[in-house]
Amino acid sequence: MKVLAVGAHPDDVELGCGAALLAHRARGDSVGLLVLTGGEHGPQGQSSRVSEQEIAASILGADLFWGGFEDGAVPEGRAGVAVVEDAIRATGADVVYTHSPRDSHQDHRSAAVATLAAGRLVSRILMYETPSSLGFAPTVFVDAGEHLPGKLKALRAHVSQVLKNQMVDLDAVAAQARFRGFQARLRHAEAFETERFAWDLSSAGLSGPRVDQHVSGIEYAPSAGR
Amino acid sequence: MKVLAVGAHPDDVELGCGAALLAHRARGDSVGLLVLTGGEHGPQGQSSRVSEQEIAASILGADLFWGGFEDGAVPEGRAGVAVVEDAIRATGADVVYTHSPRDSHQDHRSAAVATLAAGRLVSRILMYETPSSLGFAPTVFVDAGEHLPGKLKALRAHVSQVLKNQMVDLDAVAAQARFRGFQARLRHAEAFETERFAWDLSSAGLSGPRVDQHVSGIEYAPSAGR
Amino acid sequence: MKVLAVGAHPDDVELGCGAALLAHRARGDSVGLLVLTGGEHGPQGQSSRVSEQEIAASILGADLFWGGFEDGAVPEGRAGVAVVEDAIRATGADVVYTHSPRDSHQDHRSAAVATLAAGRLVSRILMYETPSSLGFAPTVFVDAGEHLPGKLKALRAHVSQVLKNQMVDLDAVAAQARFRGFQARLRHAEAFETERFAWDLSSAGLSGPRVDQHVSGIEYAPSAGR
Amino acid sequence: MKVLAVGAHPDDVELGCGAALLAHRARGDSVGLLVLTGGEHGPQGQSSRVSEQEIAASILGADLFWGGFEDGAVPEGRAGVAVVEDAIRATGADVVYTHSPRDSHQDHRSAAVATLAAGRLVSRILMYETPSSLGFAPTVFVDAGEHLPGKLKALRAHVSQVLKNQMVDLDAVAAQARFRGFQARLRHAEAFETERFAWDLSSAGLSGPRVDQHVSGIEYAPSAGR
Amino acid sequence: MKVLAVGAHPDDVELGCGAALLAHRARGDSVGLLVLTGGEHGPQGQSSRVSEQEIAASILGADLFWGGFEDGAVPEGRAGVAVVEDAIRATGADVVYTHSPRDSHQDHRSAAVATLAAGRLVSRILMYETPSSLGFAPTVFVDAGEHLPGKLKALRAHVSQVLKNQMVDLDAVAAQARFRGFQARLRHAEAFETERFAWDLSSAGLSGPRVDQHVSGIEYAPSAGR
Amino acid sequence: MKVLAVGAHPDDVELGCGAALLAHRARGDSVGLLVLTGGEHGPQGQSSRVSEQEIAASILGADLFWGGFEDGAVPEGRAGVAVVEDAIRATGADVVYTHSPRDSHQDHRSAAVATLAAGRLVSRILMYETPSSLGFAPTVFVDAGEHLPGKLKALRAHVSQVLKNQMVDLDAVAAQARFRGFQARLRHAEAFETERFAWDLSSAGLSGPRVDQHVSGIEYAPSAGR
Repeated sequence: MKVLAVGAHPDDVELGCGAALLAHRARGDSVGLLVLTGGEHGPQGQSSRVSEQEIAASILGADLFWGGFEDGAVPEGRAGVAVVEDAIRATGADVVYTHSPRDSHQDHRSAAVATLAAGRLVSRILMYETPSSLGFAPTVFVDAGEHLPGKLKALRAHVSQVLKNQMVDLDAVAAQARFRGFQARLRHAEAFETERFAWDLSSAGLSGPRVDQHVSGIEYAPSAGR
Repeated sequence: MKVLAVGAHPDDVELGCGAALLAHRARGDSVGLLVLTGGEHGPQGQSSRVSEQEIAASILGADLFWGGFEDGAVPEGRAGVAVVEDAIRATGADVVYTHSPRDSHQDHRSAAVATLAAGRLVSRILMYETPSSLGFAPTVFVDAGEHLPGKLKALRAHVSQVLKNQMVDLDAVAAQARFRGFQARLRHAEAFETERFAWDLSSAGLSGPRVDQHVSGIEYAPSAGR
Repeated sequence: MKVLAVGAHPDDVELGCGAALLAHRARGDSVGLLVLTGGEHGPQGQSSRVSEQEIAASILGADLFWGGFEDGAVPEGRAGVAVVEDAIRATGADVVYTHSPRDSHQDHRSAAVATLAAGRLVSRILMYETPSSLGFAPTVFVDAGEHLPGKLKALRAHVSQVLKNQMVDLDAVAAQARFRGFQARLRHAEAFETERFAWDLSSAGLSGPRVDQHVSGIEYAPSAGR
Repeated sequence: MKVLAVGAHPDDVELGCGAALLAHRARGDSVGLLVLTGGEHGPQGQSSRVSEQEIAASILGADLFWGGFEDGAVPEGRAGVAVVEDAIRATGADVVYTHSPRDSHQDHRSAAVATLAAGRLVSRILMYETPSSLGFAPTVFVDAGEHLPGKLKALRAHVSQVLKNQMVDLDAVAAQARFRGFQARLRHAEAFETERFAWDLSSAGLSGPRVDQHVSGIEYAPSAGR
Repeated sequence: MKVLAVGAHPDDVELGCGAALLAHRARGDSVGLLVLTGGEHGPQGQSSRVSEQEIAASILGADLFWGGFEDGAVPEGRAGVAVVEDAIRATGADVVYTHSPRDSHQDHRSAAVATLAAGRLVSRILMYETPSSLGFAPTVFVDAGEHLPGKLKALRAHVSQVLKNQMVDLDAVAAQARFRGFQARLRHAEAFETERFAWDLSSAGLSGPRVDQHVSGIEYAPSAGR
Repeated sequence: MKVLAVGAHPDDVELGCGAALLAHRARGDSVGLLVLTGGEHGPQGQSSRVSEQEIAASILGADLFWGGFEDGAVPEGRAGVAVVEDAIRATGADVVYTHSPRDSHQDHRSAAVATLAAGRLVSRILMYETPSSLGFAPTVFVDAGEHLPGKLKALRAHVSQVLKNQMVDLDAVAAQARFRGFQARLRHAEAFETERFAWDLSSAGLSGPRVDQHVSGIEYAPSAGR
């Protein structure tokens, strides 16, 4: 599979689905990260959240793409959709992770709805939780398996957030993994909401949309991302 | 009854509620269409979606209004609300059809919320599905009855989408009508969500809001569309 | 149209949809009432709730059927379904009113689910609220129009509840009608949830299920009511 | 407790939670009002909604803050969040009242989501209903107790809306309080939705977030309001 | 306040709301426990879950009532409702805790719906989570404050479950308290769903239903528990 | 994987998830069917639905288990749970398919809730739709891929329903697969709701619950199926 994970700020993706991304890498899937802003308005002072994200991406074994939007001003409309469309095209993603749209943070909401629009032909879209999620009600879980330590390692790469400012609480991350695992009848898990998740039981991959559907129906309003 | 159907792009209204509009015409109701954009960013090249929409409107026997917004940039705020308010006033509509607000396409969402705001005094607002609807859960159905062929005819007027670029999949439209009919215990149907639908059992029409309510309560924040 | 209204106890139907039933009668529809129990365990002492229900039915101009179950023990399974099926058959109902299934009263829940099972081929099922409804979220409204006084008159027929024991609070009933009307942008209204409501725009009546659907699909588990 | 109530326009707060605010005052809590716009686009002609709001605030015994946004154009993003953050800081609020985000009025939606973002560390956020609420499903109620007359008095201060233009229907307000009280098994009540409401059973106040949580986790995306 | 907590089996109440009950006791509220079955079908061999529950109740400082139903066969209908009604009457409870009705365990569902029926006049009903909860979506939280150790102590009284058979995982209980606290912006918390929760801001207690409402409306179907 | 599919009547499983079961077989998974009743109350006259189900099971390559309950009287409580527990144990299932619990047919509801109880330790439970589903809102899809013809073949084995009495409408089945495929961006699909679905990204299988969790927490009320 080819995977794209979209987050609004540096560390969002690692918090939301870091273990799942490591599990994808372990089975040989390619993984791309699209981080929409540089998170430049946080309290980290001069430290570069950009370089921290680069280190985290390399720990995850992921290609890193930047959206280039201003922190706090991710657009949900055409501009946002176009950036996510480009990343889907560049990665050939057939699995997309993003924020849940019910989130009190406006950048998270915008990232979610832009990704849902850009991913309108993708059969597997999983939406992760954040501390600002509202009424998050997960039904799909990914077994964190052996990958919880790797997730914590990737989070520690966000030095300005974890070590200097304690912006990420690794203890709460572990408790969450335990609780979500409990709900899924697993040891540790990451939890997701989904609008559509196609479970692939074949060895040949998903069938994809009908040829004529590909240029019809779902795309009948093709201006989505322009 | 006086009917207004609001869509973001040419062909949205026909896909969502074309058979219902034909059923309204068959019983003598007046029907207006408000299409918010010209759909100019689709792949139809030079072909005019505007003239196609005009032909479709004449097949439906409907008056056509244009919102004049840019494809992909329908505003959900004051500007969008004002345009729908004007159309409600011009048509005297007491039944309004529009998109469901849960849709991954930003223009569809904006059309829906602008219409809900503009129609704040209307007792019958039905929201149709599109291929990009999210979690669409219909409870109100309109019997497509004899009007499925007419709906398909109106869709074929969108030549650039149906014939040239196969942007509309007529086969999927028919399957959907069959499935929705099955759910409603009818032969073919169109399916709708609603926030409020007043079923009129009288011969005298709905009572309308209380006189003092008309200038109060619901309008207490009268700046909705301005 | 032919209407059946199902209630668990005497006065449930009048409280939930009395004005709607009067509106049906005013347009010439036939109306049947199915009351599943005699309400014999209430505090009304020796007074007969059965005869009160008979008077109320005659005020509504409705035929009265009794389910014959014990108050407090309405069965949701086969026995309950069979009784409602019989009443649907006897009345030829194509519109069915019943309780909402989310209700803290077990008889109300049972009446609702038995009616949903028995009405599996009916295209219009409206579910009314009671004081014990839980999370009632109406989307369909019937204009109470001129019929609120008639509804109150029918309720007053339940002498043991209204006059002697003040079991029905007519003032609260009027306030509710006003509030629901406000929500529906009408003067007074009754409010309903629905799983499916087919709005009939034709003069010829609903198309009904496909001939082959009638003996298939929906009935593929024909043991529903046995 | 320290209370902040956020409304989009003059009179929104009084309509939504005026009795609750009076109950807070009666127990000695401080109350701040943040009104995001001057409501200048309503039909009140030359009359000043600003001075009316000042009178209403003094009836409520509340400090009044103005957001300074244009009527009809409340921003849901950074600008809106920053204004609410400032008011939370200025009042030290540990209880926040605001609009429900499901509302057909764009200013109400924006006020709600900006407040949810700004209040991301607050343990008690209650969302009130308006006439344009959509699918409002309250679960938390505040006993209006002795305060319904005071609420009506505060509403009457909005002279341009109540007396001159009948923009507020005091009769409907009373019916609503009665209906919501009925649902809550109280005499009169105001009704609220909530994403999180911490019920404080101690005499020592809520524990608040963990010290390290305060600068982590929930704030890991600290750019929310900037 | 006077509190009643209803659970299907020994240890359900301690797991679901043990810290809240301790917080009630700390402020001087009386607390009753109603345990509907003896949990006799668990794997605890000869050990008595009954005596364990008695010890746990004394740790909580609560009066203990037994429902006397067979483990695995809690009735949701009249028999179950009557037992809960008796306990509400005996305790004078104006706050009731019980299971959430969405739970894959039939005894939990039955306990929940019987309590909702029996508590139809109670203004504060909080529903706790269990390991078999389905789609639990809490909105009301109680600050566990100083009471998490006490909750764990009460759980340890269930020796046959905790020590001998490891039926209760105290580590998971602590992780859950941490996660729910995180969601509520508190250190540790217990989480609840609610159908109605009246927040009492007065010093005089809730107003209660209207006098005429008390014998009307909500009780119009008085056979609820008989 | 080891799969168990639970249905109330002969042909329920084939209609709900026949293609998914064939996809499981094609990848080498074992498949068990548990049919809870013989469907003896249908209109098929003397014909044996039991032998038809045996033929269908052999077409699917599945082991067939019978629940032995009476058609129309599937118990949701202990008796039903015990039968499903036995089948889970006999098949070692780590994937379970069953009805959605929101269904107007009482046997379908009972089958669903009994399976949710029995499967309380299973990490993958998918719930299929039937013609009597209520408000079915699928989020997980299985690509029907090459298996739609096989599904139709298995359905045709139900001769008494398909050929003699037209109880199953194969045309509607195909339309449904097309519509659900459209929603999932696939050619044809089967659609499922889920309470929990653990997506296994490893080659080693799911981690399963923690050892101590296995005999704790989720089983703390071990009497579920007894």
